[in-house]
Amino acid sequence: MYELGVVYRNIQRADGDVAAKLGEFGSATVHEAMGRTGLLKPYMRPIYVGARACGTAVTVLLQPGDNWMMHVAAEQIQPGDIVIAAVTADCTDGYFGDLLATSFKARGARGLIIDAGVRDVRELTEMKFPVWSKAISAKGTIKATLGSVNIPVVCAGALASPGDVIVADDDGVVVVPSAWASKVLEKAVAREANEAQKRAKLASGVLGLDMYSMREPLQQAGLRYID
Amino acid sequence: MYELGVVYRNIQRADGDVAAKLGEFGSATVHEAMGRTGLLKPYMRPIYVGARACGTAVTVLLQPGDNWMMHVAAEQIQPGDIVIAAVTADCTDGYFGDLLATSFKARGARGLIIDAGVRDVRELTEMKFPVWSKAISAKGTIKATLGSVNIPVVCAGALASPGDVIVADDDGVVVVPSAWASKVLEKAVAREANEAQKRAKLASGVLGLDMYSMREPLQQAGLRYID
Amino acid sequence: MYELGVVYRNIQRADGDVAAKLGEFGSATVHEAMGRTGLLKPYMRPIYVGARACGTAVTVLLQPGDNWMMHVAAEQIQPGDIVIAAVTADCTDGYFGDLLATSFKARGARGLIIDAGVRDVRELTEMKFPVWSKAISAKGTIKATLGSVNIPVVCAGALASPGDVIVADDDGVVVVPSAWASKVLEKAVAREANEAQKRAKLASGVLGLDMYSMREPLQQAGLRYID
Amino acid sequence: MYELGVVYRNIQRADGDVAAKLGEFGSATVHEAMGRTGLLKPYMRPIYVGARACGTAVTVLLQPGDNWMMHVAAEQIQPGDIVIAAVTADCTDGYFGDLLATSFKARGARGLIIDAGVRDVRELTEMKFPVWSKAISAKGTIKATLGSVNIPVVCAGALASPGDVIVADDDGVVVVPSAWASKVLEKAVAREANEAQKRAKLASGVLGLDMYSMREPLQQAGLRYID
Amino acid sequence: MYELGVVYRNIQRADGDVAAKLGEFGSATVHEAMGRTGLLKPYMRPIYVGARACGTAVTVLLQPGDNWMMHVAAEQIQPGDIVIAAVTADCTDGYFGDLLATSFKARGARGLIIDAGVRDVRELTEMKFPVWSKAISAKGTIKATLGSVNIPVVCAGALASPGDVIVADDDGVVVVPSAWASKVLEKAVAREANEAQKRAKLASGVLGLDMYSMREPLQQAGLRYID
Amino acid sequence: MYELGVVYRNIQRADGDVAAKLGEFGSATVHEAMGRTGLLKPYMRPIYVGARACGTAVTVLLQPGDNWMMHVAAEQIQPGDIVIAAVTADCTDGYFGDLLATSFKARGARGLIIDAGVRDVRELTEMKFPVWSKAISAKGTIKATLGSVNIPVVCAGALASPGDVIVADDDGVVVVPSAWASKVLEKAVAREANEAQKRAKLASGVLGLDMYSMREPLQQAGLRYID
Repeated sequence: MYELGVVYRNIQRADGDVAAKLGEFGSATVHEAMGRTGLLKPYMRPIYVGARACGTAVTVLLQPGDNWMMHVAAEQIQPGDIVIAAVTADCTDGYFGDLLATSFKARGARGLIIDAGVRDVRELTEMKFPVWSKAISAKGTIKATLGSVNIPVVCAGALASPGDVIVADDDGVVVVPSAWASKVLEKAVAREANEAQKRAKLASGVLGLDMYSMREPLQQAGLRYID
Repeated sequence: MYELGVVYRNIQRADGDVAAKLGEFGSATVHEAMGRTGLLKPYMRPIYVGARACGTAVTVLLQPGDNWMMHVAAEQIQPGDIVIAAVTADCTDGYFGDLLATSFKARGARGLIIDAGVRDVRELTEMKFPVWSKAISAKGTIKATLGSVNIPVVCAGALASPGDVIVADDDGVVVVPSAWASKVLEKAVAREANEAQKRAKLASGVLGLDMYSMREPLQQAGLRYID
Repeated sequence: MYELGVVYRNIQRADGDVAAKLGEFGSATVHEAMGRTGLLKPYMRPIYVGARACGTAVTVLLQPGDNWMMHVAAEQIQPGDIVIAAVTADCTDGYFGDLLATSFKARGARGLIIDAGVRDVRELTEMKFPVWSKAISAKGTIKATLGSVNIPVVCAGALASPGDVIVADDDGVVVVPSAWASKVLEKAVAREANEAQKRAKLASGVLGLDMYSMREPLQQAGLRYID
Repeated sequence: MYELGVVYRNIQRADGDVAAKLGEFGSATVHEAMGRTGLLKPYMRPIYVGARACGTAVTVLLQPGDNWMMHVAAEQIQPGDIVIAAVTADCTDGYFGDLLATSFKARGARGLIIDAGVRDVRELTEMKFPVWSKAISAKGTIKATLGSVNIPVVCAGALASPGDVIVADDDGVVVVPSAWASKVLEKAVAREANEAQKRAKLASGVLGLDMYSMREPLQQAGLRYID
Repeated sequence: MYELGVVYRNIQRADGDVAAKLGEFGSATVHEAMGRTGLLKPYMRPIYVGARACGTAVTVLLQPGDNWMMHVAAEQIQPGDIVIAAVTADCTDGYFGDLLATSFKARGARGLIIDAGVRDVRELTEMKFPVWSKAISAKGTIKATLGSVNIPVVCAGALASPGDVIVADDDGVVVVPSAWASKVLEKAVAREANEAQKRAKLASGVLGLDMYSMREPLQQAGLRYID
Repeated sequence: MYELGVVYRNIQRADGDVAAKLGEFGSATVHEAMGRTGLLKPYMRPIYVGARACGTAVTVLLQPGDNWMMHVAAEQIQPGDIVIAAVTADCTDGYFGDLLATSFKARGARGLIIDAGVRDVRELTEMKFPVWSKAISAKGTIKATLGSVNIPVVCAGALASPGDVIVADDDGVVVVPSAWASKVLEKAVAREANEAQKRAKLASGVLGLDMYSMREPLQQAGLRYID
């Protein structure tokens, strides 16, 4: 399924401003705005509380227990990118630590999404370099087999292509295809517009049953109240 | 097993003072006082460190990927209640976020226990609305199929009936049947009475082997010391 | 496989200074220095952020749902020890809480590694008693069946013998056989020596591709760049 | 939540004929007829291909690693019963083997549902004694702590009360409350009535889209066909 | 990430003969011939021993707990196709049973690959309709929300596009992109050519160490033999 | 923890006759006779129904995704051996298929125990070469990094040393240290002696409650019967 041993150097990145604005909305709102697709599986968790990141995707395909392509990927990073890494088989090894993070940061990376393990989490936390991963593991990796950089990859159940927008926070990680980014942003804006008003109503004691006019459809569905 | 499409409005709540006192003891002590039953499975974790809650149960039965009944449940909440929600099949979707939390809080809810996912954890944390869940996920839910409110439900392996006392903290979540609440409180009080004294002894270097008179039963069980 | 019902009182502990120095390097570096062996499975996690410990192993073999041998082990603890506990079958019960922690601390223990559950995590966190476990659970245990103390045990997939050095932090837990401790320390020292220099280079924008001279081997492996 | 140390001798069993007829429909049809509730989690699997059983429930609550109550339960078995066993904590030990199966069979038991492990699967298969379990494990159990017999139990996420109908086959295990059994049977009969006719239609090439008149609702939901 | 509510009717299927020949090689050989990519995660298992299937993909994207699109997909099946179904969130419900299988078979389907649950496994086995799934569950599904048919989907970690070749057997499921099918077939042929010869050599007692000339590279890697 | 890059050629094998006799008793009886230790975790399952094997251990330590050492191990196999393979990190790749099985069989191996994946299960089943594994996967492995042969290894949670007796069947896999083999055999013999008699009694309707004289201890433990 994957083209192995290739690095695509010229990728079409989604607009950086659009990416930044999507990031402000957060993964839950963006996921809604995309029709509830594009979410990575919920086992992907941030390595520290409060981690937040957004950017354009540099994709990496890794081999199990082998982080060679992470070094190849570093060179392809431009400021505003997020690296998103998949592995060809399940693996929890620690592919990424403080040295690679130093390099990624120097290149302008905003964070890392990796369907495997990472290590040096204390140092990564101090550096404020946000990572979403499947595991934390002290186990290092070898550098022996080629994968690829900037090909479409399946990461934690979601397809990510180079240049896509990645939005990641406490609630998870969402991939927005670059071609959809503007439209998704519009929908996210529309969705959030009246949230503040709703929140105030609910805080004042108004019920969602009334605010969303649910009583009639519930009755039609057959809901019975028993005293 | 479940009666679907019903809402019981008049439930017999355990005494609020008893619930509050059980909450002070915490889940570990209450679980002991109940003869080690009533504990939800340990995959149920608080969404933030230090979360603590206790109250009387409003139960909800949800359908997979569908949070309609959460809105129905909101209306049944009285001050001092905790909502405890089960799903008819395994699901990690984010059934609950900051809007529902605002509504639950306005009704006087003390927290939520849900055998599924939640989202907006940053906002929930800022609101100090404690939630124990199986997962965190940005994925939202639909509103299409009826479940029930205030029927007995199986949540994370434990049976919870409306009005039961729920005690939740860092160590987990315990359900105390309302009919047992006073008796469990008595046992918890008795259990805790001499804890301080024990702690002081152990801190001074006295061994549990001696404090609990274990040496003889260990010898009788055949324990051998080898120098 | 296990000798049951025995307590070895005279164990050969690794040198305390060597253990302390290994602890300063952390689990990732020590694991590398050991040729990437000796790591416990990554499901072993600290109960609070920032937990760190190192010491010489007092080993415990427990029966499922039974913490009797933890009390027996307490007597064998000497200042600078870490207790590492295995169970003869998978179990998530809470074997250890604040009372045992008080006792362990009074004996000079530096922490606990347990392939099962613990409870009272709020109190353990306040006491700054670090624990790495598979689960957190309010469920207590009985005291009915013998295990052993200070025999070799398999804990979370790794073999630990009494007196071995244990290094535990945010990245995981590593067991260093006592006979290897000095040699592993040498390797760890060598490994760390030029880390600072590497970090500075990477921070300045030098790529790992160049710093580690990877371009040629990557080319020989067949890596193709596509513009 | 559980009453420990009790054995209820006089239980109200569902009608044996109703149970037998429900068994003929199988778990999938019965589950549908119950409004899709009452199903045990799908990790419960038969120990041999083609296992099938139905009967009235004798319930058992076990302690982890302890099968004492299985012997107590044996005496409560009447011909036509199925034993359904829950454990107070997750456990994969082998609670049940060929000796207990011989005893259960002599008492007239139709099978065993157990949210834990079993062993001697070769012998159980030869005896044609059907078992649905979470695990297979050679590990035996002790006899030290009381549970209960014939109290309501939560088994693999479903509530089972003594006397309920249990229907188990390749597709899973369903609990039908005894009070609902006749009504569920009626619904199952109705459901199956026209299955043969539907099957013939579909086999002849008629599409479900047409047979179930789905084309219009799909169009209204917005489905677009693209050539 | 997914386009929802669409059905692509005209898909480019891989050559049927190529698909059939790839099927004869089996998943392990085809996976090797593809450079070890394209394999679904190993939790995907056949519902009966000895199941084997190959064909061209009709893809389906399902919503959790909702099998509406399976009926839509049935109409798109042509003889020689295999249906491969993904879900937008983790779900173990039984999406597929003997009625749908009857319909799929009437349309000429060779089998089903589904990253969810199925039911009626006894009947499916009798019909010899092969299915690879994540779970077996009696739980049925609703028909309420649109997904899509014949869009690229991520199924059990692998990307499958309409018309791709699917090869499935006891060892797992592999997706071969239609554009690669001929080339992969060539490689598979080459790979298998000398297998018989190798097998004979190994059966005669020749070691892989010698047959593959591994002794020297092992020595160079530093392998030491100790007597 | 592990010595890497070494092959011990002269290992002390347990007596072959003792191994064979232990095999006849099966894993459950042997596990009991060992005081309930030495059992591999229950996720280790045979690849076909009815698989049974026993023999003396040739141990292998593998690297993740790398089966190089399996070829090195082949040369160390003597008739009557079973190969037991551990991996330094969790991995489900298919390390072993019909070619290696042909070679192992030619050397006299009785089977394979591997804490990872295998493939070609159809062929292995036809060859009647029994394998117990964690997974089945078509994914092959590379040959790049050294492990070891005939060092003590931790396999699926149990310690296995070269020459130990391995007993494997439908119920699981047990490791008997070579030094204990004769003594364990004696205990197994004693244990089985009166099994036939017990079985006959139970089959005749005698209850375990009476046969094992459990009524009094149950009463003393506080068991109450309620009519």
